[in-house]
Amino acid sequence: MIFTSDNAFGVAPEILDALARANEGAVPSYGGDQITARIQTRFAEVFDHEVAVFPVATGTAANALALATLTPPHGAVFCHAHAHVNVDECGAPEMFSGGAKLVGIAGDGGKIDPAALEAAMAALPAGVVHNVQPSTLSITQSTEAGGVYTLDELRRLTGIADERGLHVHMDGARFANALVALQCSPAEMTWKAGVDVLSFGATKNGALAAEAVIFFDPAQAADFAFRRKRAGHLFSKMRFVSAQLEAYLEGDLWLRNASHANAMAKRLADGLALVNAARLQTPVEANEIFVRLPREMLKRLRAAGADFHPWPMEGDDGEARTVRLVTSFSTRADDVEQFLKVVSG
Amino acid sequence: MIFTSDNAFGVAPEILDALARANEGAVPSYGGDQITARIQTRFAEVFDHEVAVFPVATGTAANALALATLTPPHGAVFCHAHAHVNVDECGAPEMFSGGAKLVGIAGDGGKIDPAALEAAMAALPAGVVHNVQPSTLSITQSTEAGGVYTLDELRRLTGIADERGLHVHMDGARFANALVALQCSPAEMTWKAGVDVLSFGATKNGALAAEAVIFFDPAQAADFAFRRKRAGHLFSKMRFVSAQLEAYLEGDLWLRNASHANAMAKRLADGLALVNAARLQTPVEANEIFVRLPREMLKRLRAAGADFHPWPMEGDDGEARTVRLVTSFSTRADDVEQFLKVVSG
Amino acid sequence: MIFTSDNAFGVAPEILDALARANEGAVPSYGGDQITARIQTRFAEVFDHEVAVFPVATGTAANALALATLTPPHGAVFCHAHAHVNVDECGAPEMFSGGAKLVGIAGDGGKIDPAALEAAMAALPAGVVHNVQPSTLSITQSTEAGGVYTLDELRRLTGIADERGLHVHMDGARFANALVALQCSPAEMTWKAGVDVLSFGATKNGALAAEAVIFFDPAQAADFAFRRKRAGHLFSKMRFVSAQLEAYLEGDLWLRNASHANAMAKRLADGLALVNAARLQTPVEANEIFVRLPREMLKRLRAAGADFHPWPMEGDDGEARTVRLVTSFSTRADDVEQFLKVVSG
Amino acid sequence: MIFTSDNAFGVAPEILDALARANEGAVPSYGGDQITARIQTRFAEVFDHEVAVFPVATGTAANALALATLTPPHGAVFCHAHAHVNVDECGAPEMFSGGAKLVGIAGDGGKIDPAALEAAMAALPAGVVHNVQPSTLSITQSTEAGGVYTLDELRRLTGIADERGLHVHMDGARFANALVALQCSPAEMTWKAGVDVLSFGATKNGALAAEAVIFFDPAQAADFAFRRKRAGHLFSKMRFVSAQLEAYLEGDLWLRNASHANAMAKRLADGLALVNAARLQTPVEANEIFVRLPREMLKRLRAAGADFHPWPMEGDDGEARTVRLVTSFSTRADDVEQFLKVVSG
Repeated sequence: MIFTSDNAFGVAPEILDALARANEGAVPSYGGDQITARIQTRFAEVFDHEVAVFPVATGTAANALALATLTPPHGAVFCHAHAHVNVDECGAPEMFSGGAKLVGIAGDGGKIDPAALEAAMAALPAGVVHNVQPSTLSITQSTEAGGVYTLDELRRLTGIADERGLHVHMDGARFANALVALQCSPAEMTWKAGVDVLSFGATKNGALAAEAVIFFDPAQAADFAFRRKRAGHLFSKMRFVSAQLEAYLEGDLWLRNASHANAMAKRLADGLALVNAARLQTPVEANEIFVRLPREMLKRLRAAGADFHPWPMEGDDGEARTVRLVTSFSTRADDVEQFLKVVSG
Repeated sequence: MIFTSDNAFGVAPEILDALARANEGAVPSYGGDQITARIQTRFAEVFDHEVAVFPVATGTAANALALATLTPPHGAVFCHAHAHVNVDECGAPEMFSGGAKLVGIAGDGGKIDPAALEAAMAALPAGVVHNVQPSTLSITQSTEAGGVYTLDELRRLTGIADERGLHVHMDGARFANALVALQCSPAEMTWKAGVDVLSFGATKNGALAAEAVIFFDPAQAADFAFRRKRAGHLFSKMRFVSAQLEAYLEGDLWLRNASHANAMAKRLADGLALVNAARLQTPVEANEIFVRLPREMLKRLRAAGADFHPWPMEGDDGEARTVRLVTSFSTRADDVEQFLKVVSG
Repeated sequence: MIFTSDNAFGVAPEILDALARANEGAVPSYGGDQITARIQTRFAEVFDHEVAVFPVATGTAANALALATLTPPHGAVFCHAHAHVNVDECGAPEMFSGGAKLVGIAGDGGKIDPAALEAAMAALPAGVVHNVQPSTLSITQSTEAGGVYTLDELRRLTGIADERGLHVHMDGARFANALVALQCSPAEMTWKAGVDVLSFGATKNGALAAEAVIFFDPAQAADFAFRRKRAGHLFSKMRFVSAQLEAYLEGDLWLRNASHANAMAKRLADGLALVNAARLQTPVEANEIFVRLPREMLKRLRAAGADFHPWPMEGDDGEARTVRLVTSFSTRADDVEQFLKVVSG
Repeated sequence: MIFTSDNAFGVAPEILDALARANEGAVPSYGGDQITARIQTRFAEVFDHEVAVFPVATGTAANALALATLTPPHGAVFCHAHAHVNVDECGAPEMFSGGAKLVGIAGDGGKIDPAALEAAMAALPAGVVHNVQPSTLSITQSTEAGGVYTLDELRRLTGIADERGLHVHMDGARFANALVALQCSPAEMTWKAGVDVLSFGATKNGALAAEAVIFFDPAQAADFAFRRKRAGHLFSKMRFVSAQLEAYLEGDLWLRNASHANAMAKRLADGLALVNAARLQTPVEANEIFVRLPREMLKRLRAAGADFHPWPMEGDDGEARTVRLVTSFSTRADDVEQFLKVVSG
């Protein structure tokens, strides 16, 4: 009963097989191989748009390199106050950008509040040398609180960015989970919604270590290859990163994996909603649940072998505490049922 | 007949198997797993010394993070003029250190000339604010020119560094190849020879993407974990990086792989030495050969399916050009023989 | 009637004279001169403590270099949300530190709220690689809102910092104004109150361009000279920066200048307090006033030749707006009276 | 008899007077004043070209900010091996650029050898991610060895840069000395010769602390104001930096000062040329002399009160050593004669 994180789980068998298949023969290194060439085409099909695709191996690399490309050292990146780029990457965007400033914006369910965004932008007037310059908006989809922006919500935010001439980055560490939740196309959730650059995550959803930075305007990617190399994120045996991405897209594995994870989360949330003592803190729209449970119940769960992370929230007290439950492509239905059984005690 | 690079080859089967084995179950992420814990102990045994070990996935990450840890932004790193850190990492050490300066030192066979090193240090007096401050010596073992420093040569250089209070880094992208060439212990070639921090390479010698930064004085590693994280080089599914390293060390796979590569290079070099028109440019001590061949011979080789990189050197002309030949853990003896057969034409 | 900023005013005649006197003869450059040597001693006397003093020419240089010395690239600097280092230096601390993160803390009157500080620190647990590491507390004295921390308030904050092992920086751009307000000694307001490094400002209070970074523990200054040089802040004709500081301290010019500025602000504030339509937004404790005035009154003031900056605050509306009024060492009493006369209409 | 450096001397009286004049009244800060506006026009006239002018206070700031504007973090700056930016700024260009690489090029008399420049560029192929990208050429005029590039020599170098798409920066710390040596116009020595950005030095030639970064294509300066601010090089009382530059240009003070310095150097060099035991190491074309003198003669000079810096060069030995002699706008003819008298002993 592991609900700590989607990255606590291993690799999807289809992807492990792809690594073995990719191991045939000697091929050009540093991305000169055929698999890396093929995924360029594959991503263009998936997103129904010209793209420049750069495989990397971690989400932090994808995000920080993307933000550094879009943001000058004297620029500001607007993101949710709880965004991974703001609080969980030990300052990677600041490092890669040469010292840009991340401006955390409030908002319920991990979603940036449009009015708060406008206020934050207004506080940093363009052209005034005393303040950092509004440059980039970074949106996490699905959000760090387990929510999913609707297409309208996305367009509202990117519209504000566009008016001020900002670039838009999407942190899609859980892109697939959001996509299957919205039942829309990859194009609709990205460039059609005003996204310039996407951190397309695969690791949390079944890859070993593979993400892709996807530019919808390849001209913006002019210096990305250099940035990636000098950051140590260009892999010599690149075929093995690309092969993960290829297998991830093959036969809609990514969508099936995400659908499973979301379904498990929904089942868990539905079950918890029936428990009087449990309080779901945010709407469960993807594969994360934030729920406040009585301390006694948490003890029982741990005793029964359940694992999860505490996630302190306002309102927690000696009696009850909030925890985060994350489901994955390989979370078993049995574990979910068992968890609910313990809770229902 | 691929001799382009050791990283053109795939993954050793033992390591691929280890990835599959590591895929069992859900485990703590970001290095909290058992495999990552085990390799700490394993490396301490291998090096016969207390160590702090940090797995990363690329050699550039290992080198640049290590150098940045040892060198302040206003520091100088002394290395060979042709060192990978100086010419093949697109400025990664400069980026990670916050702008330190790499000072390239001349020397035959890719080996830093001690007198030239002393002269370069003397040109940067300590305590003078106008020049960057001598901070770190970086030695590549085996060298970029296919040579291997003897233990005496290593101690000579580290002695010079020590007198001036510099730290010593070893770029061991081909550490195993050097080790089996010298027939000494890992301890003798590192901390006993004055090395503080080692970039221990596995990728070129059979891993998928795995290197280890090894501190022989764990106190020097105090902030390394933060540097690695903010550089995007802390893997969420770390077990799969660590598993590669564990399998690499298991049953001396690393030494067997390197011995094979070196043997193939020796066989190739011995064969080339018998060819009048061929000129070996540097002593072949590990798994790289730099040889000048007549243009007509190069054409014949390419026609026969041989692949390798041109490596322009002084003395090349319209008639003959230098190329680099690299052998690997999986270079086939047949390919070597076939290559020599074409050359002998 | 200029109340825009204290740096709109020129240079105190005593300091201009000192520049002329310093112009005698040829002397060693880059701080090897006698004047620079003398001010080391002078500052040690003034602060009654061993100090390492580094003259620079701008407040941003002083602050950013000091913070970069105390804070690693993966560190966090806690400061007031409206602190100059956070909102008025275009990201200088981020640049000089190599990407550290500034964490803005709320608090009335420009003063950091201790509970908010503790909460912000608690959100960044030490030793967890995912978040930047609490490293430095930066306190502005007098504050950006014209307030002055009492010694008790200072000690409360530095005590919190000390418990967590943080260094303490004081932005003393208006240090003298705070000092004469508190009627305490320089020692009491700095090292005795837990301050490690002070940005000692002189420019706003009568110098041409002179600030001093003062370390109360010279050991912490080990690499400061290199940081200053590589930032372009080591002046070749240093004697002219040092001469300003010497003249500033000579005969308590600094205290007299600040006393005058504060007295002018008090007179202005007292006058405004009697005006029904005016609302003083924060206590006036140094040389800055934030006052909301009816729009019609602002028009009259401008028409009469008064100049000042709008300073939008919550509660402003179509009828009345907040403006900032700053007095200086050379603000004339006549201008203050004239301003009040116009206001009283 | 001070010949240590031109920055050992003080401020020209005309410039000191200008500071006093600029002290009248309260004016907008941060460059919003009238003097700063006027010098934009003045420099456009002097250079007979549209310009964007940014006053700063040190040569290191001018150079490093200019180079950082022209060079991406993954770029290479080509300069003379002994260039100030390469060896005397403690890594400032590396810091401001975010880690760009300076590539030192050999050449006699401090002049970059065109063939060596072409070879260095060829070693860094454009578009190859493994190496830093050729971005900028930095030329020092007059050179660090006291030479002056002819216009033909300048055009030869800038032509090479232009073919490869590089920007051209000129370090004009001693711009006036070169200009009066060549007897050409400021336009001829800069934009007409292919220079994009100039560090226009005034400090060494009589200012207190004033340099100007001059862009001949203002479009390239788009983000310079932000870079200057976040580096702490935007002065609040900017009028006093601008006033120095205005006075420097007024009535050709700059040219008169430089002519005097050059004349003093020529007189000194002519005298030394007659001394058998003295060996002039490089042609004396501006205001610096590098001369090897017998050790006994050096002793006599020091005993007589002469001061200068040792400048070790190849060929120095126990008998004779090279020293640098620098003359300035205020070097007295008497001191020169006295020096020669001692030498002729």
